[in-house]
Amino acid sequence: MHYEILSQMKKMLGQLDKWLDHATSYAKERSFDANVFLGLRLAPDQFAFARQVQSACDAAKLAAARLSGQDPPAHPDTEQTIDELHARVRKVIAYLGGFSQKDFEGAATRVISTPRWEGKVMSGADYFLEHAMPNFFFHLTHAYALLRHNGVPLGKKDYLGPLSQHAR
Amino acid sequence: MHYEILSQMKKMLGQLDKWLDHATSYAKERSFDANVFLGLRLAPDQFAFARQVQSACDAAKLAAARLSGQDPPAHPDTEQTIDELHARVRKVIAYLGGFSQKDFEGAATRVISTPRWEGKVMSGADYFLEHAMPNFFFHLTHAYALLRHNGVPLGKKDYLGPLSQHAR
Repeated sequence: MHYEILSQMKKMLGQLDKWLDHATSYAKERSFDANVFLGLRLAPDQFAFARQVQSACDAAKLAAARLSGQDPPAHPDTEQTIDELHARVRKVIAYLGGFSQKDFEGAATRVISTPRWEGKVMSGADYFLEHAMPNFFFHLTHAYALLRHNGVPLGKKDYLGPLSQHAR
Repeated sequence: MHYEILSQMKKMLGQLDKWLDHATSYAKERSFDANVFLGLRLAPDQFAFARQVQSACDAAKLAAARLSGQDPPAHPDTEQTIDELHARVRKVIAYLGGFSQKDFEGAATRVISTPRWEGKVMSGADYFLEHAMPNFFFHLTHAYALLRHNGVPLGKKDYLGPLSQHAR
């Protein structure tokens, strides 16, 4: 289950990468600097767009690392441009692409902790279901909503990406 | 996996139920009609708040029904008030609470179709991962973002709910 869902997250980061292109095109059409998007917020005390993208990337990267017992690559949150956000997203897509099903054997019973939990721990199964997966979608969807709110023409197909449909 | 994630969706619908209470309290403090929230949108061509809530409910309900081979209960989208949205959310929480792990044996290989797919089908596994789960979080997070954007004081703890943490 963990590998399958991480693969779905990888797919959706690929969609996010395309939303950045739509944002760039929209800015070009309207003659404004696309990098303005990085500072936009839906509420003054919510993360800005750049940090929503960084947080979606981190939720997926850290889940893959923690559930497989690896040290995650460091990605300092220094992105200042859409191009740098593209690079961040693509680094995480490449990182996720390096895993296989067997890397997550025993993931459910790993003991997971983060600096924010003040010494408490979660099982790998609970951490993934209750924390990593909802957080990933939270930040991914906020990134989408911020672009839509600010005029970028995106639709549900841009969110979901291609579906594995076939004739009956 | 399907049962575990549907159980997590049930938990998160319980959080959504609480967000509605926060919206009601906020409206009372500011002396406006809380039912105004139902018509608010982040973009003029996105679903309004009521339909985001209805769509999150439907994504979870339809996934549970389709993956277990049941007919889903009909919930016409007629809600006009916060109280009616509470009732809708609680009906879906109760519906999801009626399932057990064994209801989803064989779910991955079921053939799933919806009227919108024009005759095409997906496997249960693909439908859940690529469609039902991302759609659930999409609409749930839009409901959250709409409330936050309009001043309702919510934070990440309200989104995630209680975590299964314990001492090491």
